Amino acid sequence: MRELVRRLPGYRFVYFGDTARTPYGTKSPETIIRYAIEDTEFLLRRGARLIVVACHSASSVATEALKKRFPGVPIFEVVTPSVKKALQVTRRKVIGVIGTRATIQSGIYERLLRERDPEVRVYGNACPLLVPLVEEGWLKKPETRRIVKKCLLPLRMKGIDTLILGCTHYPVLRKIIQEKAGRRITLVDPAEEVAEEVRAFLSGKEGSPAVDLEKDGEPLIFVSDLTPAFEDIARIFLGRRVKLLKAEDAPL
Amino acid sequence: MRELVRRLPGYRFVYFGDTARTPYGTKSPETIIRYAIEDTEFLLRRGARLIVVACHSASSVATEALKKRFPGVPIFEVVTPSVKKALQVTRRKVIGVIGTRATIQSGIYERLLRERDPEVRVYGNACPLLVPLVEEGWLKKPETRRIVKKCLLPLRMKGIDTLILGCTHYPVLRKIIQEKAGRRITLVDPAEEVAEEVRAFLSGKEGSPAVDLEKDGEPLIFVSDLTPAFEDIARIFLGRRVKLLKAEDAPL
Repeated sequence: MRELVRRLPGYRFVYFGDTARTPYGTKSPETIIRYAIEDTEFLLRRGARLIVVACHSASSVATEALKKRFPGVPIFEVVTPSVKKALQVTRRKVIGVIGTRATIQSGIYERLLRERDPEVRVYGNACPLLVPLVEEGWLKKPETRRIVKKCLLPLRMKGIDTLILGCTHYPVLRKIIQEKAGRRITLVDPAEEVAEEVRAFLSGKEGSPAVDLEKDGEPLIFVSDLTPAFEDIARIFLGRRVKLLKAEDAPL
Repeated sequence: MRELVRRLPGYRFVYFGDTARTPYGTKSPETIIRYAIEDTEFLLRRGARLIVVACHSASSVATEALKKRFPGVPIFEVVTPSVKKALQVTRRKVIGVIGTRATIQSGIYERLLRERDPEVRVYGNACPLLVPLVEEGWLKKPETRRIVKKCLLPLRMKGIDTLILGCTHYPVLRKIIQEKAGRRITLVDPAEEVAEEVRAFLSGKEGSPAVDLEKDGEPLIFVSDLTPAFEDIARIFLGRRVKLLKAEDAPL
């Protein structure tokens, strides 16, 4: 969201955070697909005409189902742009991916990377504890640093030269991750990549824009559950205090 | 569940774990109340005639709403029995409570403890990271020990002599918690207390049993979402491998 707003100032954004059912990354593909469909229906009801699936767990397991269910709607997700970028930057074709259990178990990064370049070697590691650490705001604590280090160790042992930050929460820990990975590993932040892809799409660079989007003011940020802690998390992610709106017609 | 089955062998148990929407402890009272009502309706549809709210977050914020909504059903929860026990064992009347954010913010332990004994001093601390650590099976890792220690420190500074383990997940870490709390602090495990209360109720010791429960075989363990990780967690809690049943008619 932050990267999109930065690149597309003035567009009208509607965000939905399913805080009543979060986290998704520990849940089964069936449940994540059902939630992703309901979330998309919510955004479409709110007037969205282009969808960005900004969650890696949902992107990994639900993109196909969403495209099938909503054939007329341009749907962007965070996996494909990260794959493209990782293949551009890797030097020795050894790529690591960290993500939630749902994302890593889906095997989608490995599949898409090897479809585009069969020579590439891909290693994934699920790091589920990083999500609650970020949500608790433990961004600089020694425990967080230790857990990041432990999570990266098996990937470093494999000699990766590129690391995909395969969960929305991980870029918040980017500095620690870079430090524990070492300077020679290039980090790929999918947020920047997908925002760039949407910008290119809307500017007609990748074919004519499918939709002529309205442009106005502040993003609308809806959540399905509202607590002071969620407001703190939103501030961590967006870099400033924002008003969260409790969506009474959210999927339940 | 484990403590109930141990004390009431042969009774027919129906369990529901809302794994599709877990965790509850980070969510708002409104959302937890809605979920608790839906969960109770599910259990009643499955034939339950006595309800045990085994989650502290739900016990803390939803008990009143449940008793109002289901007036004919005996409803047990985990807060009251822990309060009774803590008042029995405290020597200097300084009691600590650890729990999720929802439980601690509800202030219910402090209110009930001081209603029964106005002289008691109560200190609470939310330790939300212990839930994902247990769910990841990090039961003996150094990071878990450090986080437990950090969580207990402010309570030890207050000179507590009794500590209520106010979240279903914490008794799994009982050994580490006792070690970091020190031998002079008595731990209160609400699971044992509520199981004892239900046993007493059914044996007619606290008035006649309201319900003559059927007795047969294995507990039915329903979940709203099923993954291999949830099966591992169930094994950690119940001490043996159990069959989880995906409830197709679970609340969503």
